[in-house]
Amino acid sequence: MRKRLSVVEYTKGILSGDRVVLSRAITVIESKLDSDKVLAKQILREILPFSGNSIRIGITGVPGVGKSTFIETFGKHLTSLGKRVAVLTIDPSSKRSGGSILGDKTRMETLSNDSLAYIRPSAARLSLGGVADNTRETMLLCEAAGFEVIIIETVGVGQSEILVHGMTDFFLLLMLAGAGDELQGIKKGIIEMADVLVINKADGANQNIAEEAMGTYRNALHLSPKSASGHITQVVTASGLEGKGIPELWNMISDYQKLTSDNGYFIRNRQSQNLDWMHERIRQALESAFYENSVIKRSIPEIEKLVREETELPVVAAERLLALFLTKKSEEPI
Amino acid sequence: MRKRLSVVEYTKGILSGDRVVLSRAITVIESKLDSDKVLAKQILREILPFSGNSIRIGITGVPGVGKSTFIETFGKHLTSLGKRVAVLTIDPSSKRSGGSILGDKTRMETLSNDSLAYIRPSAARLSLGGVADNTRETMLLCEAAGFEVIIIETVGVGQSEILVHGMTDFFLLLMLAGAGDELQGIKKGIIEMADVLVINKADGANQNIAEEAMGTYRNALHLSPKSASGHITQVVTASGLEGKGIPELWNMISDYQKLTSDNGYFIRNRQSQNLDWMHERIRQALESAFYENSVIKRSIPEIEKLVREETELPVVAAERLLALFLTKKSEEPI
Repeated sequence: MRKRLSVVEYTKGILSGDRVVLSRAITVIESKLDSDKVLAKQILREILPFSGNSIRIGITGVPGVGKSTFIETFGKHLTSLGKRVAVLTIDPSSKRSGGSILGDKTRMETLSNDSLAYIRPSAARLSLGGVADNTRETMLLCEAAGFEVIIIETVGVGQSEILVHGMTDFFLLLMLAGAGDELQGIKKGIIEMADVLVINKADGANQNIAEEAMGTYRNALHLSPKSASGHITQVVTASGLEGKGIPELWNMISDYQKLTSDNGYFIRNRQSQNLDWMHERIRQALESAFYENSVIKRSIPEIEKLVREETELPVVAAERLLALFLTKKSEEPI
Repeated sequence: MRKRLSVVEYTKGILSGDRVVLSRAITVIESKLDSDKVLAKQILREILPFSGNSIRIGITGVPGVGKSTFIETFGKHLTSLGKRVAVLTIDPSSKRSGGSILGDKTRMETLSNDSLAYIRPSAARLSLGGVADNTRETMLLCEAAGFEVIIIETVGVGQSEILVHGMTDFFLLLMLAGAGDELQGIKKGIIEMADVLVINKADGANQNIAEEAMGTYRNALHLSPKSASGHITQVVTASGLEGKGIPELWNMISDYQKLTSDNGYFIRNRQSQNLDWMHERIRQALESAFYENSVIKRSIPEIEKLVREETELPVVAAERLLALFLTKKSEEPI
């Protein structure tokens, strides 16, 4: 293990925008070592007052929709305006030790060489309830390091879009034109969460069907209720490859930030995201304490057998296990 | 409160198919009184060995799809074949004391007068995680009372379809033909859960567009992976009003029952539903114990405030609350 810095060194490095220190601090946050967990908490407490000054943008879409190219072009547009941009990816398929479908080094080469940009694939622990705590905390570090736009990227697998929606201010769904898209690939709830649907690859021969798809989705969304943010979900076309539609998209996001800051939704939404995050952690910790309790571990196979065979009611079996946990729980740490 | 019978009286009454006793037993199961909870558990333990001998059919669809008429016609077809049919409804909008959009007495009048049918609106407690325990247990009582087909009906609100899918053997989704259906009303995941999509109201002038919709959905489903049951999701048209397609539908369900009994899926699925039910109960009980703990109740407003204002990290706040719970929990019942 590489030598750790002191809390003060991490904090000073992050606040001065030193990306080597930032990267090392993120490594501490992602670490499973108990000593690192203590250190991570100390770093986070120090930088917390300097976090939050950003617009957090979630970007998702099915594989093949052109996310990397889109984010590279979008990111370059932002840095051309002098904005500091951090791109974090949540990859539900990656293992901490193994490879990652999002994190390979060859992606977003131009953007990663840009001095105003910072790209970090997140080794997301999509545990039980699926909270990617690392990504949330990495986001805070990036904000403290002065990044004004945080892009959180994910593929549309499992619960990952819901996670990303729960930690961002603005949610962008990349789509492809083409028959069948309505019923496959994109989950219904995801469209409802989006602040903008972007029909990507609206270039060359694709232009016409992209425009058509835009019309279809506009009609469909017409029936959706207005969002609590006061923003009406938009449908646009864009080309990550050619850059078409990208400046307009950034203007829309800036308008959104202004609108929701003025009407108070921006801060309300972040506050409720923080609360949700806390309650999700509580839920996870309670379940871990239960299922990792040695008495429960010993008893559960037999009780599960009775339930499976329908010789015991599930509710009664649950009560029996809870009673065991109750009598034993004070002996073990939660 | 009406006088309760003895456990033996309830058990004998249910096993002999006495529907007055059955109804009174269901009332005990739905009761919130502690004494009734004990009684309910005793009744359930007695009848458990006699439950399970049925096909459990979940039926859902958006309001206006014609569920009542469909179920009435479907139920009458089953009773005409000599089958004993119980219809239970889960209504997420109902309050125990108040009205119910599904449970009003004027619905399914013909079926409710049929001596082979039993209709019971369930006062579903869709709590926290949304488990309708009452409905599951009511189903067991109905089975012990000799009902061979159990229909669980719900409207497509919130998590109710997922709940019903989790307690049934066969899942039937009622749909309407017509533009926009694909994107509105029906949640994407629901279509994937269905064993059959029934385009209802395929009568009169509607016939043609129903056939068209059937084709569209068949094409769309063509891309879906095969289910673990070995059954391939079907798309059919039917008319609850005229009875068209109803006998064929019952034949399909009978074939499904035979197929999945032979290949072992039927029993495997029920076993895993029982386990899920137990774990869901455990989850709920752990959260109740936590949030109803007096120390937590006292501490949570202040800690939530810190989290909302971003002066405390959500994960750290969660840890503080868990530590409080840990030191205090042995003093209170879980």
